[in-house]
Amino acid sequence: MSPALVEAFGFAAALLTTISFLPQVVRIWRRKQAEDISLPAFSAFTLGVACWLTYGLLLGKWPLIVANVPTLILAASVLCLTLRYRRRRER
Amino acid sequence: MSPALVEAFGFAAALLTTISFLPQVVRIWRRKQAEDISLPAFSAFTLGVACWLTYGLLLGKWPLIVANVPTLILAASVLCLTLRYRRRRER
Repeated sequence: MSPALVEAFGFAAALLTTISFLPQVVRIWRRKQAEDISLPAFSAFTLGVACWLTYGLLLGKWPLIVANVPTLILAASVLCLTLRYRRRRER
Repeated sequence: MSPALVEAFGFAAALLTTISFLPQVVRIWRRKQAEDISLPAFSAFTLGVACWLTYGLLLGKWPLIVANVPTLILAASVLCLTLRYRRRRER
């Protein structure tokens, strides 16, 4: 396989996993509910992405930094919205 | 910062993002509902992780392969369970 095609897989992978949780943020925001979202799952994912970002910053590796900043914002948004709408329903 | 501590961040990041969706699979499985899960989000995430795995296989890079196989299984499980419980409710 051509090296360009191999790199295309890496680029598609980075793009898809970086922006994938945007529709999840939009869904929770619109429907104002998040009962089916697992808080431990998005807590672990957010912490993991924060570790990737820290790793990238410590190594000074721009691809790690650039790929993980949007993912961290989206993962933390899912987490915050889930906490917000769970609490609201419990009142 | 010591190189060992830097690598510890990378290891923690890989471990957390690899296993993070296990509690999400368990939550959907136990409650038999997934209305709040975004299908476009988990479709994009599953496809992205499949691209990471393909990229790892094409490059022959074991860390990419080992880290992405469990994530792909978990992401695909969230997707399949979401489709299953959505369809069941629509009947």
